[in-house]
Amino acid sequence: MISVDTKLISLLGEPLRQSFSTKMQNDAFRERGLDFEYFPIEVGKEHLSDIVRAIRHMNYAGFALTKPNKVAIIPLLDELDPLAEKIGAVNTVVIVNGKLTGHNTDGEGCVRSIEQNIDKPVSQTGFFCFGAGGSARAVCYTLAARGAKRIYITSLHDKNALSLSEEINCKYGRITEAVQNKDEAKIVSAVSDSQVVMNHSGVGMAPGVDDTPVSEEALHAGQLVFDATYNPAKTRFLKDAEKRGAGILNGLGMLVHQGAIQFKLWTGRNAPLESMFRTANEMLGERR
Amino acid sequence: MISVDTKLISLLGEPLRQSFSTKMQNDAFRERGLDFEYFPIEVGKEHLSDIVRAIRHMNYAGFALTKPNKVAIIPLLDELDPLAEKIGAVNTVVIVNGKLTGHNTDGEGCVRSIEQNIDKPVSQTGFFCFGAGGSARAVCYTLAARGAKRIYITSLHDKNALSLSEEINCKYGRITEAVQNKDEAKIVSAVSDSQVVMNHSGVGMAPGVDDTPVSEEALHAGQLVFDATYNPAKTRFLKDAEKRGAGILNGLGMLVHQGAIQFKLWTGRNAPLESMFRTANEMLGERR
Repeated sequence: MISVDTKLISLLGEPLRQSFSTKMQNDAFRERGLDFEYFPIEVGKEHLSDIVRAIRHMNYAGFALTKPNKVAIIPLLDELDPLAEKIGAVNTVVIVNGKLTGHNTDGEGCVRSIEQNIDKPVSQTGFFCFGAGGSARAVCYTLAARGAKRIYITSLHDKNALSLSEEINCKYGRITEAVQNKDEAKIVSAVSDSQVVMNHSGVGMAPGVDDTPVSEEALHAGQLVFDATYNPAKTRFLKDAEKRGAGILNGLGMLVHQGAIQFKLWTGRNAPLESMFRTANEMLGERR
Repeated sequence: MISVDTKLISLLGEPLRQSFSTKMQNDAFRERGLDFEYFPIEVGKEHLSDIVRAIRHMNYAGFALTKPNKVAIIPLLDELDPLAEKIGAVNTVVIVNGKLTGHNTDGEGCVRSIEQNIDKPVSQTGFFCFGAGGSARAVCYTLAARGAKRIYITSLHDKNALSLSEEINCKYGRITEAVQNKDEAKIVSAVSDSQVVMNHSGVGMAPGVDDTPVSEEALHAGQLVFDATYNPAKTRFLKDAEKRGAGILNGLGMLVHQGAIQFKLWTGRNAPLESMFRTANEMLGERR
């Protein structure tokens, strides 16, 4: 039960019916014995400023943002973490002494999940990224900030891949390369040449579950193949990769790790990762 | 846990640390199997409009108001219940189809609590009221609307008693009479002449627990003596009354009944009165 002492956290976005975060964060707060309560507020860009103005006068420790509010929130904040500023999107706001600071934990969540499934450090690893949208931006910027060896980026919209690649190279040196979407031969060779292959394009998500971003010939043992979705839990992309002997990883770990980073930002305590994985897996199971 | 379907209710006021309402309402929602969540928001007049603007865009069924917001809320509402309009104070707001309607359940809560402890109907009962502040206003107006036989009103500030009495007589006919605070003889005879004697003046509340609004000689068997406070549970006023053989009643029943009326307004369902009394008594017990 929420008392005057309870620290509030809300997720602001719409729709939110499918979100795992409420249960995952609340279970984690209970596990740590913290008097925090996380609850969803379905709100879009139009009324976002009304909600944020009220939050400033309530007992909030922070809030989370999802579609369509990750960019719209920025002008409403007092400060911006440097990485979130570069990414140009905020999914986490922390309130300290009435000051609202924006962060982005999506990229770091993905990188941590991947790190736990590869042997070498990020700085000695080559990445291939399908997609240049919000999720890809966050991850590629985070990889660049972490000193990744190389990042190939391709997108159904070549322009997006090219501009993301140029932006990152501008800030971090020539570590990314955009690959034209129609240049299949180059895609296959670059994918084959990368130790981690990530799909942030949404291709293969329900209902288009027969689609995959690249033909299976590009995938092989020794690679980690990552898909940002967890619906389905094993996309055709991951099935192909598995068949080819590659390691596979879906987006559930990214979801949990980005939530764990949020937990730490809001509470100052380390997140109970095990409990968060358990909750996420339970919810995924119930939904199938 | 609060989901996108959970209907929210908040109490807006400050300070709220001592409030019983959160637990009382939440226990009642659980008892009826309703997906409602009640929680306090500590806010004063200055930021009340910011909170109400956000509430309009959230999944709220309504909200409650306490000091210092019962009058300040009125210009922020879309409609006003006629009795709340006469009282000039709102403690309950119901949201239907985005429209905010203000009600006052304080007076009706008090009258219901008293009704359950007297034999005759309100229309055949004479009342004496110590106090002419917010609580007294709500109760005297409600008694007038219910056709009370007569209401004497006295206040430490004669002006307040006189203006409340005149206002009510204007709207409901000559049923009230203001008694001057210094006219002890008249107070004693009017009290003695009344079947229900109510203390809404705050006199006798902690820490001034040795004070009482009238000398015990005015009280006698056959009367119901009511004190709006429940801290202490038995004021000197109630102890004197008990000694004199009168029936006694403290403010806990008023608190529970006004909450039960709110419950009905917000949910459309009859409140589980027994559960609400149990919670209120438990909380009072813990606090002592």
